[in-house]
Amino acid sequence: MTCIDLTIEGEELLRALEELAQINRQPDGSCCRIALTEADRLGRDLLVEWMRELDLEIDVDQIGNIFGTYGRQSNAKPIMVGSHIDTVSTGGKFDGPYGVIAGLEVIRALKRHGMVPPCPLVVASFTNEEGVRFQPDMMGSLVHAGGLDLLTALRSEDREGVALGDELKRIGYAGQLRCGSLVPQAYVELHIEQGPILDRERVPLGAVENLQGISWQEITIHGQANHAGTAPMSSRRDAAHTAMKIVSFARDLALRMGGQQLATVGSIHLDPGLINVVPRKAILTVDLRNPEEHRLKEAEGHLIDYLEALSLEDGVSIEKKRLARTLPVAFDLEIVRTIERSARTLGQPIRRMTSGAGHDAQMMARICPAAMIFVPSVDGVSHNPAENTEPEHLILGANVLLKTVLALSYKDSAP
Amino acid sequence: MTCIDLTIEGEELLRALEELAQINRQPDGSCCRIALTEADRLGRDLLVEWMRELDLEIDVDQIGNIFGTYGRQSNAKPIMVGSHIDTVSTGGKFDGPYGVIAGLEVIRALKRHGMVPPCPLVVASFTNEEGVRFQPDMMGSLVHAGGLDLLTALRSEDREGVALGDELKRIGYAGQLRCGSLVPQAYVELHIEQGPILDRERVPLGAVENLQGISWQEITIHGQANHAGTAPMSSRRDAAHTAMKIVSFARDLALRMGGQQLATVGSIHLDPGLINVVPRKAILTVDLRNPEEHRLKEAEGHLIDYLEALSLEDGVSIEKKRLARTLPVAFDLEIVRTIERSARTLGQPIRRMTSGAGHDAQMMARICPAAMIFVPSVDGVSHNPAENTEPEHLILGANVLLKTVLALSYKDSAP
Repeated sequence: MTCIDLTIEGEELLRALEELAQINRQPDGSCCRIALTEADRLGRDLLVEWMRELDLEIDVDQIGNIFGTYGRQSNAKPIMVGSHIDTVSTGGKFDGPYGVIAGLEVIRALKRHGMVPPCPLVVASFTNEEGVRFQPDMMGSLVHAGGLDLLTALRSEDREGVALGDELKRIGYAGQLRCGSLVPQAYVELHIEQGPILDRERVPLGAVENLQGISWQEITIHGQANHAGTAPMSSRRDAAHTAMKIVSFARDLALRMGGQQLATVGSIHLDPGLINVVPRKAILTVDLRNPEEHRLKEAEGHLIDYLEALSLEDGVSIEKKRLARTLPVAFDLEIVRTIERSARTLGQPIRRMTSGAGHDAQMMARICPAAMIFVPSVDGVSHNPAENTEPEHLILGANVLLKTVLALSYKDSAP
Repeated sequence: MTCIDLTIEGEELLRALEELAQINRQPDGSCCRIALTEADRLGRDLLVEWMRELDLEIDVDQIGNIFGTYGRQSNAKPIMVGSHIDTVSTGGKFDGPYGVIAGLEVIRALKRHGMVPPCPLVVASFTNEEGVRFQPDMMGSLVHAGGLDLLTALRSEDREGVALGDELKRIGYAGQLRCGSLVPQAYVELHIEQGPILDRERVPLGAVENLQGISWQEITIHGQANHAGTAPMSSRRDAAHTAMKIVSFARDLALRMGGQQLATVGSIHLDPGLINVVPRKAILTVDLRNPEEHRLKEAEGHLIDYLEALSLEDGVSIEKKRLARTLPVAFDLEIVRTIERSARTLGQPIRRMTSGAGHDAQMMARICPAAMIFVPSVDGVSHNPAENTEPEHLILGANVLLKTVLALSYKDSAP
């Protein structure tokens, strides 16, 4: 066994992240490469140029996902790494591009040592992960995994009625590869956490074992409008007061259930919303999240029971409307353990964690074993020009990706 | 002593209310006679015509208040009754006109029996009580009472920059009478309650002994925005949650203080107000009302203390801004008792009460003894085409006004 210092070139990683970030950079520092826009085209062109420089075989599929393959001569099922390079309108430098560019740096490191793993290594950049202009989000990986029909995706329109398929042709990324052709033996996505946990705990790495299920409900309370100066307190049916009880209940529910249950009321609208009128109506949203489906269902059940009791207690009628519901995703435990071992090999602490945000990996998990590696987001900030990750953490994460890919590639034949 | 059946002509009262309501009546039944508009002019013209028919001496002052005087030959200080005939854009038939037209009916009843009381009787219609187009509201009576400079009032502009003084000339009601010349010995205003108390308690009459002081505060909570899917519950500084504690506190405060303390949170705005973001900021309003100044101050003090404690408890910063503050008004107890006796003379139950809304009577109370008579508003509805008062209550209220005026007129010389 030969021991070599196989690590990624940190400076190159940081330089590439910075170069991509310059495309359509906004005055406030935001990265604005919304999917299927001219800025997205420029970003894709740069990515393809980098793939060419690394002599990767480049495929673009019918939904515009870009795949760069290293070592296709092997007939083995590939290992895939990747993420996305589109951003929100006020994006940071790392959300997405980090996982793609780190993949290229993994290949560069392998090539530097003349290593061709026993199975092909694919770097994927999925179309429209953010879902800003065209919905749904995570569209490219969803179509790839067979969760959304290609034609439906191509026909999705933006607010001006422009079809995604037309934009894909316009920017030159309506590819030939049939969607879903590339089914890897494993998918690993490296991403910034977009949350505060690693930063707060000062742990440089996360092995993401699952992804929360999300339940969004809109709740409308019909009370009775009244004059603030004449309606006695005892006779009011104040929709704001009932709404307040739900905010309080949601928070208490999450704290009482403990574990990883989260509950957020992010939006409240009162009608008529005047200083001197007891609100007749309140519309609020409740966002419930849990990585365990039975716990998420339990939380939903508690909320429904509470709303029924509350309706009677406050003499108001309460309507519920489901706005969104996603199932939790459990990532592959084998890959999670491989990620943990890779971190330990590098002498670095790592914690298992849950992803609070959605990622392409959750779509890939439908068709292959998948997992994610997280690095800290300073103060948990994301989707914001202030999004930041320390350079040493960016480099460390890419090295863990490299070790993980090697371990997965050589798992049947110790390297 | 001769006993005569001195009562108002109920049919005439109802007919006049209906006739005035037809001016600029809206398709939904709303009365829309916003002060200083063409519709206001038409309403005033009709009122003046009625005053002429009753041979009243008509004066219009410099702010457009209209006074119709019966029995000016006496040198005694007059007794004044009245209210306003302007409406909000979705007004009802009775809010305002009832007190003015009932005043005319009182004079008609006196004339029918050839009675000329020992002091003049003035029916006043004050300009711009509602304050829809020009602020402040209760403007005519405020200027009359010396609480607002005439020139300032004339220069007040609507949203298009049109000055009230110009509109007053345009509609022909920029009068000659110096504002505040007419200082009565007593002012009595008959009005619909605009609240639910009389209707709910099935009491047909209210003797209004005071008017609430009003305290409006805007409260801004600065928490911390966070991702709903990643921020642990325990570490959140959720502005919505702090806002909701204030909603709860305000209600509990009013219930705990009891008496006539009211507290309303009618408006809440969350920032950024998105389903999946823990709100960084909440702006809400608190409306506190009490007819006793020391109790209102007590409520304000409790709120301030609570906000200070809450700021520490929730780790958020809280700003307060006073939006409005009016002192409570105590009406004249003698007149209140006279109103009660008048009701009893008619064999009708009456309850003392507080006015939750503002009225011209509160301005008149600055310069003379004043009080109000209320009749029930069905379901407490007002400022709405559904505003309603039963005809028998309208007629009863006018008869109580008549008895009260007689009692005040003849108080030194039993009639």
